[in-house]
Amino acid sequence: MTQTKKFNTHPPPIAKLSSKHLLSIEGMHKNEILSILSRADYFADLEISKIKKNLQGFVILNVFFENSTRTRVSFELAGKRLGAEVINISVNKSSIKKGESLLDTANTLSAMNPDVLIVRHPESGAPKLFSEYLNCSIVNAGDGRHEHPTQALLDALTIKRRLGRIEGLKISICGDIANSRVARSNIHLLTTLGVEVRCIAPPTLMPNDLESLGVSCFDNLNDGIKDSNAIMLLRLQNERMSGTETPSEKEYYHYYGLDEKKLELANPNAVIMHPGPMNRGVEIASSLADNEERSLIKMQVEMGVAVRIATIEALHGNKF
Amino acid sequence: MTQTKKFNTHPPPIAKLSSKHLLSIEGMHKNEILSILSRADYFADLEISKIKKNLQGFVILNVFFENSTRTRVSFELAGKRLGAEVINISVNKSSIKKGESLLDTANTLSAMNPDVLIVRHPESGAPKLFSEYLNCSIVNAGDGRHEHPTQALLDALTIKRRLGRIEGLKISICGDIANSRVARSNIHLLTTLGVEVRCIAPPTLMPNDLESLGVSCFDNLNDGIKDSNAIMLLRLQNERMSGTETPSEKEYYHYYGLDEKKLELANPNAVIMHPGPMNRGVEIASSLADNEERSLIKMQVEMGVAVRIATIEALHGNKF
Amino acid sequence: MTQTKKFNTHPPPIAKLSSKHLLSIEGMHKNEILSILSRADYFADLEISKIKKNLQGFVILNVFFENSTRTRVSFELAGKRLGAEVINISVNKSSIKKGESLLDTANTLSAMNPDVLIVRHPESGAPKLFSEYLNCSIVNAGDGRHEHPTQALLDALTIKRRLGRIEGLKISICGDIANSRVARSNIHLLTTLGVEVRCIAPPTLMPNDLESLGVSCFDNLNDGIKDSNAIMLLRLQNERMSGTETPSEKEYYHYYGLDEKKLELANPNAVIMHPGPMNRGVEIASSLADNEERSLIKMQVEMGVAVRIATIEALHGNKF
Repeated sequence: MTQTKKFNTHPPPIAKLSSKHLLSIEGMHKNEILSILSRADYFADLEISKIKKNLQGFVILNVFFENSTRTRVSFELAGKRLGAEVINISVNKSSIKKGESLLDTANTLSAMNPDVLIVRHPESGAPKLFSEYLNCSIVNAGDGRHEHPTQALLDALTIKRRLGRIEGLKISICGDIANSRVARSNIHLLTTLGVEVRCIAPPTLMPNDLESLGVSCFDNLNDGIKDSNAIMLLRLQNERMSGTETPSEKEYYHYYGLDEKKLELANPNAVIMHPGPMNRGVEIASSLADNEERSLIKMQVEMGVAVRIATIEALHGNKF
Repeated sequence: MTQTKKFNTHPPPIAKLSSKHLLSIEGMHKNEILSILSRADYFADLEISKIKKNLQGFVILNVFFENSTRTRVSFELAGKRLGAEVINISVNKSSIKKGESLLDTANTLSAMNPDVLIVRHPESGAPKLFSEYLNCSIVNAGDGRHEHPTQALLDALTIKRRLGRIEGLKISICGDIANSRVARSNIHLLTTLGVEVRCIAPPTLMPNDLESLGVSCFDNLNDGIKDSNAIMLLRLQNERMSGTETPSEKEYYHYYGLDEKKLELANPNAVIMHPGPMNRGVEIASSLADNEERSLIKMQVEMGVAVRIATIEALHGNKF
Repeated sequence: MTQTKKFNTHPPPIAKLSSKHLLSIEGMHKNEILSILSRADYFADLEISKIKKNLQGFVILNVFFENSTRTRVSFELAGKRLGAEVINISVNKSSIKKGESLLDTANTLSAMNPDVLIVRHPESGAPKLFSEYLNCSIVNAGDGRHEHPTQALLDALTIKRRLGRIEGLKISICGDIANSRVARSNIHLLTTLGVEVRCIAPPTLMPNDLESLGVSCFDNLNDGIKDSNAIMLLRLQNERMSGTETPSEKEYYHYYGLDEKKLELANPNAVIMHPGPMNRGVEIASSLADNEERSLIKMQVEMGVAVRIATIEALHGNKF
């Protein structure tokens, strides 16, 4: 699946993060983002058996208050490929409700002296709360409607490897922008790297304040994807929406689902992305999802492991 | 629990499989089966600490769409004893229903570049579908009513170690043949190795086409176990049966449950097997299950790990 | 979090247990308890990366028939820090009910040749039953209302490190004594080590036979904590109580919840402990839980890993 082979005589340095945490893309400096992308790009080309297991004894707790096989396994593989010890903890909703407070749970986990907590939580801000009280590094693996920083990083790496660059591109993000942490993280990352970002959504799913972030907004897909180099589709998050604002899936597909015909309005080489899991026939035509020329969906998952290796390695480096 | 100690000066060679997958016993050549049994026999005698951890960096995803502690742990132990990295993924029914398509799930897992996917799935054919679309090796850990090949291999290893041979034996399989993947895999394996196979079931739980596979069919237990060297009992799978064809447990036990008295009709040294979990007092008399002279149920579990070590090692060998 | 740094020129010897199991504190000799505390104290001070991974190939099954993230992760970390292989098995209630008998489950797990089974089970006596039928070592990680021996050991280590000694102290245990395995294990351990133990509970939650264990009983908190050096609060276990005997949470807090004012009656340096997860505003005032001078709750969790390392290492030693 590697698109571009490079012959590095020297591997790029371990990525540098100014914080001991990775909580959001918002507030990250361009150089931090680029250092992760550059190091992850190196790991994406490296044979798995050649990754040095330098993190022996480094303990990562993968704490998921919300299910996500994809993200959990990606972080688990990344940690193990570096030789770290990864322990999975899945906390389901019912025990959040009747159980101890979030901070008590965090304190308990922290008392076991892990080096990193990877946290996914249904409420925005939970990872930040953790970072204020605990000694270990915190990685936000998706919190409510807030951010999902490693997703934006893996999307950027995918674009860079496939299109050769990021700066100066036109990229459209289409779907349930209001409820999407993936959209928020991508908006921050892409604008920081000099991309012209367009957001496309039905009016009920478009936040009000978006233009202040330097993006343009469209309620019409055909207008929004014109000349775009990449189109990021978002999952229709029925579980986060309340009744009346939800369009029917059929209607949604008619206006906002991407198919071959609508895609003709984009740049002739435009690529398509989706953070998964996708609803075929809702956000995207099934045939387009399977079109290997255009769809980078599988490559995104692959890049996810590389980006998480680079991230964990950077946080490990910050301890010394 | 080892029944026969051997002093091999040379260990048998790593098993050879003609395919990069293990999807079914049907279609396997006799020599493939024997090569796995021979290698697994060696592992069954080997001290755990002496197993060479040659599969460092080899990644196994244990993907269970149906619960099975027994089989999941057995594969996990087998992989780890070889030094491989084993990642457990349990996908529950509810997320199959509302979630992404099976193939999208498979593609996502595959994009993380595992070497082997161990797949258990409630629908027959799911592992084969995976094998057609993904690059990694697939092991069928039980699919619907179709097959459960490593179960048949561990059953064969158990018989071979206890009775000294397989060819020429008379073996009865008793119970819910129609719904049993264990029965199907065993029928294919045992007939391939020259066993006289008899299937015993109430008429409603006996498939029509069975005699074409070279087995004889009985609806009477007493007739079916006459002179048998081994009797394999199957779990009454209430969860896979629809209402009317299900006998009451009490009635089932009366006609098809094995007890000491009925067992007298078999060969005087006949052994009893059950893939577990067993319903005592339904398929088997509780006293018989605990009779260590006759019951090989615990040994079957033990051989399960050895067979899975030999299988994973063979698939690893096929990569090079 | 380490409270007392020591400069051991020689580490204390591996703890000695007279049994191959750790089923209860009741029946343990004082010297066994002290040998675990002494060795665990050493591990609590040791940098994680300096713990020798001497248990390569040693297999631990973490079998939880009842959920407990805290205890499961603590044992998992302990095992992995020694280099052992830890496999998690969570068996939920529904499958206990409809599934195979407890002993068949145990036999199946045992047939996979683990070295240690860590067992948590909702019914008192389950770990002992396992120990009578299986070849491997069994550690009781909490069984019904019976015992939770490693909890009492970690509580003792916490006290010893914070107060400098255990013998001769006055310690109060307050709450739902009748339903608490933590209380039972602590009563046995503390009386064995020469502590004056006082139990405080509403009459409906106080067992009848308690004074025969050498403790004094109080239904009034103010009387029971007078001059105490440590106060152990217990979780109000609504899930184990039947309707009428349950006090309202508000009423319970009024009479038995510990707050700053009531604490004034104890020794001026008294410390507070809770096995977690705690109900703030029920068993303990929230401000008191967060008072780092007084509350040892976080330290208890930290000591949990050290005690479990010492325990597993001792059981490993017993194999040779």
